[in-house]
Amino acid sequence: MTWRARAMPASVDPALVGEHARREDDVLERIVSIVGRHAIPKGEIHIGDDAAVLAPFVGEALISTDVAVLGIHLDEKLFPLEDLGFKAVASAVSDLAAMGGRPRGAVIAVSSPMGTDLEELHRGIADAAAMTNCPIVGGDLTRARDVSVAVTVFGECPGRGAVLRSGAKPGDTILVTGPLGRSAAGLRRRREGFPLDDELVVAHRRPWPRLSEGIAARSAGAHAMMDLSDGIGLDLHRLADASKVGFELDLVPTAHGATKEESISGGEDYELLIVTDDPGRLQMIFLDRGLRAPIAIGHIVADNSVRTLKGETFERHGWQHQL
Amino acid sequence: MTWRARAMPASVDPALVGEHARREDDVLERIVSIVGRHAIPKGEIHIGDDAAVLAPFVGEALISTDVAVLGIHLDEKLFPLEDLGFKAVASAVSDLAAMGGRPRGAVIAVSSPMGTDLEELHRGIADAAAMTNCPIVGGDLTRARDVSVAVTVFGECPGRGAVLRSGAKPGDTILVTGPLGRSAAGLRRRREGFPLDDELVVAHRRPWPRLSEGIAARSAGAHAMMDLSDGIGLDLHRLADASKVGFELDLVPTAHGATKEESISGGEDYELLIVTDDPGRLQMIFLDRGLRAPIAIGHIVADNSVRTLKGETFERHGWQHQL
Repeated sequence: MTWRARAMPASVDPALVGEHARREDDVLERIVSIVGRHAIPKGEIHIGDDAAVLAPFVGEALISTDVAVLGIHLDEKLFPLEDLGFKAVASAVSDLAAMGGRPRGAVIAVSSPMGTDLEELHRGIADAAAMTNCPIVGGDLTRARDVSVAVTVFGECPGRGAVLRSGAKPGDTILVTGPLGRSAAGLRRRREGFPLDDELVVAHRRPWPRLSEGIAARSAGAHAMMDLSDGIGLDLHRLADASKVGFELDLVPTAHGATKEESISGGEDYELLIVTDDPGRLQMIFLDRGLRAPIAIGHIVADNSVRTLKGETFERHGWQHQL
Repeated sequence: MTWRARAMPASVDPALVGEHARREDDVLERIVSIVGRHAIPKGEIHIGDDAAVLAPFVGEALISTDVAVLGIHLDEKLFPLEDLGFKAVASAVSDLAAMGGRPRGAVIAVSSPMGTDLEELHRGIADAAAMTNCPIVGGDLTRARDVSVAVTVFGECPGRGAVLRSGAKPGDTILVTGPLGRSAAGLRRRREGFPLDDELVVAHRRPWPRLSEGIAARSAGAHAMMDLSDGIGLDLHRLADASKVGFELDLVPTAHGATKEESISGGEDYELLIVTDDPGRLQMIFLDRGLRAPIAIGHIVADNSVRTLKGETFERHGWQHQL
């Protein structure tokens, strides 16, 4: 690895190698200076060898990967390139939050055509890494026609094991860590011409993984958990499927400025969906840690064909990507 | 994660979504059946939750990432698509071998345009994972114009710590685990019309990470190690730079069928470069484990400006990718 930009001796498309090509080492040096600002724990090696070396993990190890492509996961006419890097990292870290994990590090594989502002892209990556305390420990750079960022994060679960999707039991309470639809509303507002620093636009550009909330839920012995990346209208069904249960929702909390539809089908909120048999204890632990109390929205039932909101059928919504 | 194919609610290029689009779940199901053939250790969760959950790592944790792009890292006119998947995984696993690590798992992020044979690509990924005993524990699928495979591998170092590039000391012996140039010779032969099952063409298509050799070298207390991914003409300089030393080579062992130039500058051999103060012990441990004895090729000197082969200056060669 060692943050390299490597071409294998295959047929390189000449269009990808411009006259003003800069030598890889200069580019790499600038990128490493952007993403390598964190302090490196004693005994660890992050960048510069074949692989990164990390001190032993405590408890179960968690791994997740996510890829974000410019033009598909981010509209470059509406948002700066650094948002692609930020969102790719935040989305991957959110998968650790969804298990109750603590980040230990991330590696980044970036592909891009000539002329891409790799420094801007990596500033977004570095910002998300710093905010989530998830050091970038290595990476890889390659030429391609698309700008894409593949992020792999790894974390650990000291003490109690990871919280899965599959542990929900009949009678359990379903909670979410905050009102929904902020990200989708922010995207809509940006399309309508709102500035980049509008509160909801920021919620879309700079999603905040609920790491502290996830760890608190694991400590509290939550039965099941996942992050709302594709919208509760799809994700709650996935959790119910994994747990082989149904659910009866009393409400879907809609964020100020968002529509009902956005709160159900809008993705990328990254709030956590938590299922527990002791919601009082969960809320107490959240408050003890200075976290916003999660919102109870319904409960789990044994019949997995029961999927309702206020007694009406709650259909599967949300993003389904075509392949 | 949960092996998903996800679109964020941004502006999707309609050209990327064809009429014959298949539903993601069908594609995912087939892919998971291809890469998920390995036995899952008790208590681990590989595919199906937000992140993969692995049993605690023993000793230091190793992480490395690599991305391979069709048309840059593999010429699709000469090689089948499955080779891209195979080489991407093998190249990443080789980074673990280079530290003396033992693989624990890998995650795969694949981007591809409509119509890509994702099953063929993932068969190559699965083959390399099976051969290296590195289970695929999760992945991510996305639409893009390029076919690209980003592989992140993680491993562990039970007992003695990882072998770095930076530990070479004056007087140490330099060894390689095999003769060089096989991969570059195989690429040349394929371009000349040799069949896919020609021995050297296979060496190019199906590189074999030297995992057992790397673990043996770590057990033997090797001072420094790296894998020859870009050719000894570049990689040995990198090791010397990291260790702040020079070297005097007596020979560069050239594989049967390869040219001198291919043995020095050809990349992707993935033989290991090993530096030790006790080559007798190293060779004994290799033979004890049924491994081919490494070949002594020279020694380390204190003056880092001394870089010679048979007394002549040994220039930096090999692949330098333009960004």
